[in-house]
Amino acid sequence: MSFSRIAIIGAGLIGSSLARAVRAHGVGGELRLYDASEAVRARCAALQLGDVKASAADAARDADLVILAMPVGAMAAAAAEIAAHLAPGAVLTDVGSTKRAVVDAVLKETPAHAFFIAGHPIAGTEQSGPDAGFASLFENRWTILTPQADPRPEYVEAVEKLSAFWSALGAKVEVMDPDRHDLVLAITSHVPHLIAFNIVATAEDLETVTESEVVKYSAGGFRDFTRIAASDPVMWRDVFLANKDAVLEVLGRFTEDLAALQRAIRWGDGETLHAIFERARRVRREVIEAGQDSAAPNWGRDQGAEPDEDDKA
Amino acid sequence: MSFSRIAIIGAGLIGSSLARAVRAHGVGGELRLYDASEAVRARCAALQLGDVKASAADAARDADLVILAMPVGAMAAAAAEIAAHLAPGAVLTDVGSTKRAVVDAVLKETPAHAFFIAGHPIAGTEQSGPDAGFASLFENRWTILTPQADPRPEYVEAVEKLSAFWSALGAKVEVMDPDRHDLVLAITSHVPHLIAFNIVATAEDLETVTESEVVKYSAGGFRDFTRIAASDPVMWRDVFLANKDAVLEVLGRFTEDLAALQRAIRWGDGETLHAIFERARRVRREVIEAGQDSAAPNWGRDQGAEPDEDDKA
Repeated sequence: MSFSRIAIIGAGLIGSSLARAVRAHGVGGELRLYDASEAVRARCAALQLGDVKASAADAARDADLVILAMPVGAMAAAAAEIAAHLAPGAVLTDVGSTKRAVVDAVLKETPAHAFFIAGHPIAGTEQSGPDAGFASLFENRWTILTPQADPRPEYVEAVEKLSAFWSALGAKVEVMDPDRHDLVLAITSHVPHLIAFNIVATAEDLETVTESEVVKYSAGGFRDFTRIAASDPVMWRDVFLANKDAVLEVLGRFTEDLAALQRAIRWGDGETLHAIFERARRVRREVIEAGQDSAAPNWGRDQGAEPDEDDKA
Repeated sequence: MSFSRIAIIGAGLIGSSLARAVRAHGVGGELRLYDASEAVRARCAALQLGDVKASAADAARDADLVILAMPVGAMAAAAAEIAAHLAPGAVLTDVGSTKRAVVDAVLKETPAHAFFIAGHPIAGTEQSGPDAGFASLFENRWTILTPQADPRPEYVEAVEKLSAFWSALGAKVEVMDPDRHDLVLAITSHVPHLIAFNIVATAEDLETVTESEVVKYSAGGFRDFTRIAASDPVMWRDVFLANKDAVLEVLGRFTEDLAALQRAIRWGDGETLHAIFERARRVRREVIEAGQDSAAPNWGRDQGAEPDEDDKA
């Protein structure tokens, strides 16, 4: 029950990885691509990622699966553009990092004869654009679907079909409420990115330490934050605008906790510091055990590192 | 002019990596090790990292290079313990992550016939203990030395000799004032670690999101913070107690900048967000160009990733 005509609208890291994964896993028949940028479309053609169309409408026409893969702030307009061209029974989905705002915006544009099922693969790298994608990006990662409470058997069937599609690409699929998704992602992704962006900006603005010193000694920890903060700025701007409430809630907690740490440092309270630092190791172990990160020290990035640790976390 | 008897006091990640590096590069003759933990000493013997001694004094006796490699809070006591056993002309150094507090504490204990030259290799992983060390840890990383303004020619010569020792292990050496070191490391290492510890603690404490959800969806960014926060809690407790002033100063700036981001999110100010996020990419590029991090997406940790990016940052 795979799809016979798949249209991917937006060919950045995620969209182009999807195109490669669809090919690599032999799911779906015809594969169409469109991107709002002419340069990106040309690059997709050169990379032979699929049948590159001249408009979103051309890509979506008669497709039985249409995937919106642009920054979340651009999704409503994209949905409006293709709405009139969606075939009866077409499944419309997205890969945006926030869900409530996308669901509300895209549902409004979706014709009654098509089925919108929002989604979000929890996968990515710090790189962007069609050259950065790769076929295995979704393997062993979770994809969250946030379908409507739509009782029509055709809708329920569409959710199953979309879920099977993601499974075929190697993803693990979970169904969730959109608001819950936004809260969970605020702590696991959005706020971590925000504080990574922020520490990089703080370092750049310090008058007392030069930027070249920051770069030179970045192996002390700072370099990890530059990686996290290197992802697409437009995508992240849209995430924070679209998931304002959950981000502000989690950020409030983060700031509160940081103030307590700051106070412990000021008053020389080593016990409090130690107790908080201790807990992090257990969480790290759980992340490794869940298969969500590499157990190699420094993710194995050090050339010549001799992993004498015997595969233990 | 290499050292003929090297004593490493403290055999964790850094001390045991030093022992391996000394052997691997054939610098120095006799290699002695001591650790305050009996279990660690036994492990060092089993790993054949060097001649394991029963006391710090035994290790330091007649050595011409003694390296203190324990958490910075334990350095004064270690220096006091070995002081009476230091040979005339012996070079005493350390690898602690903060320098002003260590310099002040250890200098007091150093006899006039020995030369204390504080040091700090900017290298490490999230793992701890003698099994975690590896010989190439210091390669292409900076080691900062913060010598005294001691005009004696023997002291100047000792600084040169210690610098040559680190170079022989593959490190790049820089001389710096201890207070400047502490400020630079506050932004490149200490505060980044503090906020990583903090976000992990915040995630654990949220009542609205379960720990298993946090772990499950950690590939969204959170997992990177768990790695940074997984390093030795005692070491980090001591760092924050020893570098209080610089950490509080940089933390104040971080918090101020974060408040501005928070405000931009609350008021939907996408331009401000985008401008701040844009800058991070340039800093990332500089870190890669300086050879201080891997250019591979996600540090190359993704199994099966096809790096179609042609070595560009």
